[in-house]
Amino acid sequence: MKGDAASGSRERMLEATIDLMRGSGLTGAGINEIVRASGAPKGSVYHFFPGGKLQIAAEALAIYSERVQAFLDGALAGGRSAGEKVRALFDAFARRVEEGDFRRSCAAGAVSLDLDVEVEELRAVLADAFADWTALIARHFDLGDARRTKSFAGLVLTAIEGAYVRARAERSSKPFREAGTWLAELAERRA
Amino acid sequence: MKGDAASGSRERMLEATIDLMRGSGLTGAGINEIVRASGAPKGSVYHFFPGGKLQIAAEALAIYSERVQAFLDGALAGGRSAGEKVRALFDAFARRVEEGDFRRSCAAGAVSLDLDVEVEELRAVLADAFADWTALIARHFDLGDARRTKSFAGLVLTAIEGAYVRARAERSSKPFREAGTWLAELAERRA
Repeated sequence: MKGDAASGSRERMLEATIDLMRGSGLTGAGINEIVRASGAPKGSVYHFFPGGKLQIAAEALAIYSERVQAFLDGALAGGRSAGEKVRALFDAFARRVEEGDFRRSCAAGAVSLDLDVEVEELRAVLADAFADWTALIARHFDLGDARRTKSFAGLVLTAIEGAYVRARAERSSKPFREAGTWLAELAERRA
Repeated sequence: MKGDAASGSRERMLEATIDLMRGSGLTGAGINEIVRASGAPKGSVYHFFPGGKLQIAAEALAIYSERVQAFLDGALAGGRSAGEKVRALFDAFARRVEEGDFRRSCAAGAVSLDLDVEVEELRAVLADAFADWTALIARHFDLGDARRTKSFAGLVLTAIEGAYVRARAERSSKPFREAGTWLAELAERRA
């Protein structure tokens, strides 16, 4: 495999990893599952990813994190007041889980709850992603002072991750819309 | 195995399953892992649990759900005003993750994010647990009318589940304390 074909295989493996992690976390994204879902030859895994499963997972999470940032930016741009921004954000996530028939969660959240498998490298990747997302959310708000604004952005992230957990089990986007309504109240009050 | 010895093995398998699920969700709680962690003879698994892994997981989640209800009740009894109750609850969870060195999450949350493995039976067990926990939280508050109170209880549950996700990755109890502070503001305002 050379050039485009090779980079195509590598990319398909990363896409398959993101999708598997969104489906069942780190433990669901084993080498065999990645090979099966991507259609890439098994022998090519360690050619593309000498660090094996952990390297694939770390690269996949980094790509995923960039996409979430674009998604957050797009959704937050949809509102004028702080309250509207919050509602627009949670509505966007609600539509996202509805469109995926409640079968896909946040890859970072799902991997986080699998961390017992001794993967300190991945923990750092997740912590960085959450820090980046919080900083990005904070840039869209001004709740009086920087510390409170960052704390509020942290609450928004917490609610998103928790709503993913509940949405999956309840097959409902209600946890997102419910959180959006309450957090919009907080944001409006502080803005 | 008879009598006490048998019920001891069965109980140890369920305890091991709860612990494994808190560590890495459903995919981490395979039959082999349960046998290894419980020290029970492998041959006894299908004797005690004819339904195999799904039966063990469903029973373990039901036991876990009862314990969470006792934990929620105890923590919420610690405050007088609505705001104090919220803070007491999130502080209790913060201490819980600190004491466990951030290595144990909510078993129901971790299994929820693993649900891609086609287990509709377990999804219903999780949805019931979340409904029971929300109803229990709601009984500790009165935010004007029943609908708003239940909705607020739902937000509390969402924040707990999300804080578990973040606490694990960030090795910090801050997401719990942060959410407790904000949600206490909401509760005080409405009480």
